Amino acid sequence: MTQKYTPPLRDQQFVLHELLKVMDTYQQMPAFKDVDADTMNQVLEESGKFCAEVLLPINQSGDAEGCTFDRDARTVKTPKGFKEAFDQFREAGWQGLALDPKYGGQGLPALLQIAFYEMQYSTNQAWSMYPGLTIGAYECLHVHGTEAQKSLYLPKLGSGEWTGTMCLTEPHCGTDLGMLRTKAEPQADGSYKITGAKIFISSGEHDMADNIVHLVLARLPDAPAGTKGISLFIVPKFLPVGEGESATVGARNGIYCGGIEHKMGIHGNSTCQMVLEGATGWLVGEPNKGLNAMFVMMNGARLGVGMQGLGLTEVAYQNAVAYAKDRIQSRSLTGPKATDKPADPIIVHPDVRKMLLTARAYAEAGRAFGYWVAMQQDIQFQHPDEDARKEAGDMMALMTPIVKAFMTDNGWTCASDCLQVFGGHGYIKEWGMEQIVRDARINMIYEGTNTIQSLDLIGRKVLMDNGAKLKKFGKMVTEFVETYGTKEQYAEFVNPLADIGDKVTKLTMELGMKAMGNADEVGAAAVSYLRVVGHLVYAYFWARMAVIALDKVNAEGDKVDPFYTAKLAVARFYFAKLLPETAGEIRKARAGSATLMALPEELF
Amino acid sequence: MTQKYTPPLRDQQFVLHELLKVMDTYQQMPAFKDVDADTMNQVLEESGKFCAEVLLPINQSGDAEGCTFDRDARTVKTPKGFKEAFDQFREAGWQGLALDPKYGGQGLPALLQIAFYEMQYSTNQAWSMYPGLTIGAYECLHVHGTEAQKSLYLPKLGSGEWTGTMCLTEPHCGTDLGMLRTKAEPQADGSYKITGAKIFISSGEHDMADNIVHLVLARLPDAPAGTKGISLFIVPKFLPVGEGESATVGARNGIYCGGIEHKMGIHGNSTCQMVLEGATGWLVGEPNKGLNAMFVMMNGARLGVGMQGLGLTEVAYQNAVAYAKDRIQSRSLTGPKATDKPADPIIVHPDVRKMLLTARAYAEAGRAFGYWVAMQQDIQFQHPDEDARKEAGDMMALMTPIVKAFMTDNGWTCASDCLQVFGGHGYIKEWGMEQIVRDARINMIYEGTNTIQSLDLIGRKVLMDNGAKLKKFGKMVTEFVETYGTKEQYAEFVNPLADIGDKVTKLTMELGMKAMGNADEVGAAAVSYLRVVGHLVYAYFWARMAVIALDKVNAEGDKVDPFYTAKLAVARFYFAKLLPETAGEIRKARAGSATLMALPEELF
Repeated sequence: MTQKYTPPLRDQQFVLHELLKVMDTYQQMPAFKDVDADTMNQVLEESGKFCAEVLLPINQSGDAEGCTFDRDARTVKTPKGFKEAFDQFREAGWQGLALDPKYGGQGLPALLQIAFYEMQYSTNQAWSMYPGLTIGAYECLHVHGTEAQKSLYLPKLGSGEWTGTMCLTEPHCGTDLGMLRTKAEPQADGSYKITGAKIFISSGEHDMADNIVHLVLARLPDAPAGTKGISLFIVPKFLPVGEGESATVGARNGIYCGGIEHKMGIHGNSTCQMVLEGATGWLVGEPNKGLNAMFVMMNGARLGVGMQGLGLTEVAYQNAVAYAKDRIQSRSLTGPKATDKPADPIIVHPDVRKMLLTARAYAEAGRAFGYWVAMQQDIQFQHPDEDARKEAGDMMALMTPIVKAFMTDNGWTCASDCLQVFGGHGYIKEWGMEQIVRDARINMIYEGTNTIQSLDLIGRKVLMDNGAKLKKFGKMVTEFVETYGTKEQYAEFVNPLADIGDKVTKLTMELGMKAMGNADEVGAAAVSYLRVVGHLVYAYFWARMAVIALDKVNAEGDKVDPFYTAKLAVARFYFAKLLPETAGEIRKARAGSATLMALPEELF
Repeated sequence: MTQKYTPPLRDQQFVLHELLKVMDTYQQMPAFKDVDADTMNQVLEESGKFCAEVLLPINQSGDAEGCTFDRDARTVKTPKGFKEAFDQFREAGWQGLALDPKYGGQGLPALLQIAFYEMQYSTNQAWSMYPGLTIGAYECLHVHGTEAQKSLYLPKLGSGEWTGTMCLTEPHCGTDLGMLRTKAEPQADGSYKITGAKIFISSGEHDMADNIVHLVLARLPDAPAGTKGISLFIVPKFLPVGEGESATVGARNGIYCGGIEHKMGIHGNSTCQMVLEGATGWLVGEPNKGLNAMFVMMNGARLGVGMQGLGLTEVAYQNAVAYAKDRIQSRSLTGPKATDKPADPIIVHPDVRKMLLTARAYAEAGRAFGYWVAMQQDIQFQHPDEDARKEAGDMMALMTPIVKAFMTDNGWTCASDCLQVFGGHGYIKEWGMEQIVRDARINMIYEGTNTIQSLDLIGRKVLMDNGAKLKKFGKMVTEFVETYGTKEQYAEFVNPLADIGDKVTKLTMELGMKAMGNADEVGAAAVSYLRVVGHLVYAYFWARMAVIALDKVNAEGDKVDPFYTAKLAVARFYFAKLLPETAGEIRKARAGSATLMALPEELF
């Protein structure tokens, strides 16, 4: 009655080598010239094993125990086994998997890190946030730090010897960082004294590493008001002594945990109130450009959060399938199936199958999509061709809010559906399903709420460049439709894809026109618009996967690997039962802002 | 930062007296001849006060503390304040509000009990389940008990001196009660010795009352297999001594709590594993007809669970509105609104309003619908005219699964949306929003999962009588459309109502045809079908409410009570933004069962 998990290796390999044919791309990039398919598969296998064998066993116990705060010492104790798991993780070199070899990393593709994230979040989201945020801090310093900062901090973060955080939110501001008040005063030695209060700092204090490197947003004394007056600082828990890899920790810095939050889920991750009492910090990047620097971290983090949605969808699915095959209850509506038993396993019931297939279809499309986006990230940063880098960067920018919001909204509804498969047992802690639901709820909130993601998509990513990025994706869809649309056997997938593509084009134009007259039209349509575009993306990946599977099934007949039979069946389910959601969402998106804005505030 | 709640008195009065004009109906019933509108309003006011002042203050603390089980004594301690609140409740006579005066009840309409339920569940679902289940047990005995059983147990249950439970589920069977194994052996004195194990028994053991009257399903020695061999028994925790109202408690009976579940929510309600160790019980109703008897209890309970969905929607809405008016963050997309503040309250943002209005539109329609159904219950049991009773009984039968499933599904999504309004603060326990979400999750599961409700609706309530009951409701819709459809000013409400009515008719016929060929078509469409019919019902009630509000606004202009302005605005929101969900759901319902059933079990 504990959570089960098997790494989805076969499907990962399908996505990498059959769908995305990633080796064709990675071989073009000098940074990955030594990476072959075997290496990739081996990394997936070994990292999956770590998740299933080390992280999963401490997931439910970590939830039950939670983190504990010692008010006198101002320290946080993580749940039993968390530190030991991190020791194992660190010793195996997992933290540096996709990090820069110049600073001790293994230099493997970000795609593998994303796949590893998926499995980490399937097995222990609370634990995985400690190393996940460390990578975020690493990436930010990697892009914006001075060479001295990089040579000091990157090896420590990349090895997992130290961990990282991002300190943005304050009690009075989260989404609207322009209001933040934490102050940074320049000192004679080039450092800053930083004073203020931060909240919701994930992994802000813990007992798993020797030091914690906080990246803190604060204001310089003469900073302009609003978002243009925010600077970014490194504020380590312990001041480093020495330089580079040989650095050690020295005096305790004036940044403390003042308390931890009691939350709905992710109990094993410490969500800290941080107090900066004249803490010593060093500027990262240019003064007043802190938000730009932080965005590097935030975009990576948003991909990571999307993987949390995917990971929880996958593990919820696996557990619900096991239960639905095992639990016998009532007979099939079409007559008994398990005639040797007093009732049929509940997987015979159409609606149970619908709940299971919904989670599976979202997980498999999410994996294809998420891994493809991760490959765009590798291309953006490592491809020798500038046009390729630019193109990939555009896709990253367009797709990031979809990865974050669509995958986490689906993660929430799928986790809830999979809990429902268990009936009353889903509501009981020991089965572990309700933890998955509770953990999944945060993913729609942090790193920019899903409403913020939807505004980012329609406003910044689509309308701001007159749909140029969206058209690039549209071109991929059109090319696919033109290639496969001529062949009758693909029509069941190509036609609905072409149809939703046309509808997105029309809807985008309509909303663009409306937006010029009234900015609230954007806000009124944004969330539905993101769901519709998300379905366009998923329909595209499902159509591509379906073509591969159908070809295999047609070519190999009865001898085909049942993996392809299943892939084809799930594709058909997606087009029949999930894509139709867009019919309602398009109507909602088109319904305008008037009925939202009519009610005066005092009448709410 | 604790949960807030104001009883929705104004809206309740609108529903009772302006929408449903309930006095016209109740005056026709001799049982309620002394009930006037003032009495009704006063009961609403006083019961609302009890909820806000007594139940709400112990809701979050009850969640944090939970119930505790003493393994040696086999007893359960409820959270601090629960017993005292129940003492107050009992002393004020609230338990007997709508119960039979013959056994000491106040004999008020069930409608008032339903309104009280709504407010109880808004303020403390866990606590309210103790008296709620007691009413369920009362109703079952009231219909099926012998006169001796009634005169002994009803006064005790109706006063709250004793409480009640329903003991159905066993470890291996919940939905499929045909498999249950608990055994009842007849004794020479006419009683039975009952042995077996039950799980998920809400309020099964606690410290709030002198005795607990368990209604237990069990099998007689020669009972036929399956659901036709189940009998119902009264099994009190303490054996009663004496008769009627003067009875007291005697020896401890052999029914014990063996443990309590640790659950996602409703922590303050004890969910018990019950062990029957040759416990003494008495047969209720006829042998082997226990399921029929239990259905009386279950139908009432399903209405109650719908009210849990409504109550949580309302309280989630109220708290999210308060936060959205108070929290300042970013500026309106159309330019600053609160120019005296550093940012605008988040209620200026269209998507925040959409989340709030969604909860409000579902709450107000749910209230109108739920109270109307409760009135049907009163008519069914108390009206002097047989046809009226029959008609109301049909409406009850048709609507019960919609009350249960549609209102609790909406309760879950609305609670989650309202949590989202709080951003990160919604995820933190102290604000109380995440408790509302956790509590709301059970309502989709117990008293028959929402999938079971949807199968009950389409299979038993609609297709089994060739849509006769649905046509009766359709006639009400048609009459409304014909009355108001001729007047231009109502077109914005009447036209979409007529449209969804036509679509439901067509969809029902199509599914009926498909069902004849393949029973799995019913299971494949059921959940979407229930959502579509639910929207037909809500569109009907919103249209009726909109007509009343529009008439008021048109007649009274600027001087109109802003209650009607708001009602009209929310009605318009419902038709613009919520009803369109049906476009997707109809497509899903029509998409058939093939893609659900294609995947072989072993490929899941």
